[in-house]
Amino acid sequence: MAGFLSYFLPKDKVFYNLFEEASDNLQSISEKLIQVVHEPDYNKREVLIKEMHDIEHQNDDVTHRIFVELGRNFITPFDREDIHALASALDDIADYIFSAGKKINFYKIDPIQDQGIQKTAEAIGEAVIAVKQAVKELRNLKNTQKIIECVIKINSIENSADDIFDMSIERLFESDVDAKELIKRREIYQVMETATDKCEDAGNVIESIVVKFA
Amino acid sequence: MAGFLSYFLPKDKVFYNLFEEASDNLQSISEKLIQVVHEPDYNKREVLIKEMHDIEHQNDDVTHRIFVELGRNFITPFDREDIHALASALDDIADYIFSAGKKINFYKIDPIQDQGIQKTAEAIGEAVIAVKQAVKELRNLKNTQKIIECVIKINSIENSADDIFDMSIERLFESDVDAKELIKRREIYQVMETATDKCEDAGNVIESIVVKFA
Amino acid sequence: MAGFLSYFLPKDKVFYNLFEEASDNLQSISEKLIQVVHEPDYNKREVLIKEMHDIEHQNDDVTHRIFVELGRNFITPFDREDIHALASALDDIADYIFSAGKKINFYKIDPIQDQGIQKTAEAIGEAVIAVKQAVKELRNLKNTQKIIECVIKINSIENSADDIFDMSIERLFESDVDAKELIKRREIYQVMETATDKCEDAGNVIESIVVKFA
Repeated sequence: MAGFLSYFLPKDKVFYNLFEEASDNLQSISEKLIQVVHEPDYNKREVLIKEMHDIEHQNDDVTHRIFVELGRNFITPFDREDIHALASALDDIADYIFSAGKKINFYKIDPIQDQGIQKTAEAIGEAVIAVKQAVKELRNLKNTQKIIECVIKINSIENSADDIFDMSIERLFESDVDAKELIKRREIYQVMETATDKCEDAGNVIESIVVKFA
Repeated sequence: MAGFLSYFLPKDKVFYNLFEEASDNLQSISEKLIQVVHEPDYNKREVLIKEMHDIEHQNDDVTHRIFVELGRNFITPFDREDIHALASALDDIADYIFSAGKKINFYKIDPIQDQGIQKTAEAIGEAVIAVKQAVKELRNLKNTQKIIECVIKINSIENSADDIFDMSIERLFESDVDAKELIKRREIYQVMETATDKCEDAGNVIESIVVKFA
Repeated sequence: MAGFLSYFLPKDKVFYNLFEEASDNLQSISEKLIQVVHEPDYNKREVLIKEMHDIEHQNDDVTHRIFVELGRNFITPFDREDIHALASALDDIADYIFSAGKKINFYKIDPIQDQGIQKTAEAIGEAVIAVKQAVKELRNLKNTQKIIECVIKINSIENSADDIFDMSIERLFESDVDAKELIKRREIYQVMETATDKCEDAGNVIESIVVKFA
């Protein structure tokens, strides 16, 4: 039986490694977004956004490898549906963070003038760090208290991001920007706010994994 | 064997109780929305929207308890994926209903002047009652005809809500409201229409549960 | 054992038949959309959109039959979650294609003047043909190379559709159309682009089925 288990267990490790690789990517891409929203120069932002694109591509590849491993491995460290949901959530976070960066230059928005964009980028950065900590603890499910604290932190950051979003939208509609500018900024706020929603989704999956092992 | 089953069966009941609690919340929150859309006074609407927020929070808690029970219970009354999908759909319905109420005051829209908003709020109220009846019948899966009738009713209400939505959007674009007002009203119509879509999702899950037991 | 298997296998065929029926519907409805975007006459477009609506209804019925069979059959040719996800993706593709056609006349847009709409309709048509080929190969999972080629093609078409979308949105914001026209066209672009996203979703599910059988 020990031999039987040792045959399978090393294959499990691949999931922990891939999830950690994905959450490292999330930290890198969110740090680039914070640089983008504080960079006054369009062309320097363009370089950063290109780097974000590369990270997002690397992350697509990690997600793809998780799905391939899920198809190949009969034995998995958590429920298959949880692995699928967590991989999808981490992939979505990267997609929305990249999309936020891309739209800033695409719509020729000056992020320096927009506190809502800057504050939300920082909230995304904090949420991503909490996601990364929770993912790291998955490898060793003994410290459930630590994981639950991360999940609570993610939810609290998501609530703040909602408040920043509401405040930004309210200001936008009260400002005298024309309709085109309003549509552009509103779309960027929405994409950024969705990035924090996806962090919350990741936190919810991690919580459900912890509950099953409790 | 009887002892074995009796050990597990009472734990099943928790799911019926939680689903009924969620659908009771849906009825309360949809009744508040109907009051909001007929209330001319901004401040009185604000009180109602605060009450909607409380119900939405209570419902988040019910959803969370369903997921925790799902993690804890090996034996469930229906397929785990159906329980997860139904809990998510009921949670989404409450979220979209609250969001509709919140956006009315947030965007300083006068709902009294907007028949599309009023009619959709009433359609949501009817759809929610049909969802509640279908959920109640789940406890006793013998009356499948009754459940199917509820599902058909939900779908029919969702179709009417689509028609009201199309009509409202058409009027909005033909009216002389400015772009900001148009964007605000369109968002409220969309959120309300999505609430009825989520009722349809709940109906579809309930139908799939019934089919498996037929 | 052979007798046991032969009892179940014919019931499996129903899934292949239904998936092929769905992908035939997708080809028909995407061909109608291409006709719509090249038809200068509003009333002739109206006839085509009515035909699209009929196909979309037929496809709802196919999807519903897949879910019913999934509830009834204990033995399925692929994982139940993959059958569910593929059926949902094919259903979504039809919904978004119909929605694109419907919105063109609903918003009284002249598609002849809009190269972005025309090119995206053609991209959707190509993606749908690749989806159909991949679905057809599912019946005989031996030719995995062929299926993977289809999936790569779908992803490549989706990338082109993204580029057409970005270019169309950029032109739209730089043009002197008023805000109402901008909101309408942007919504049509988004719905069409989502149709190609849903083709990619279908391709991803098909890939995950292939990986499990490799």
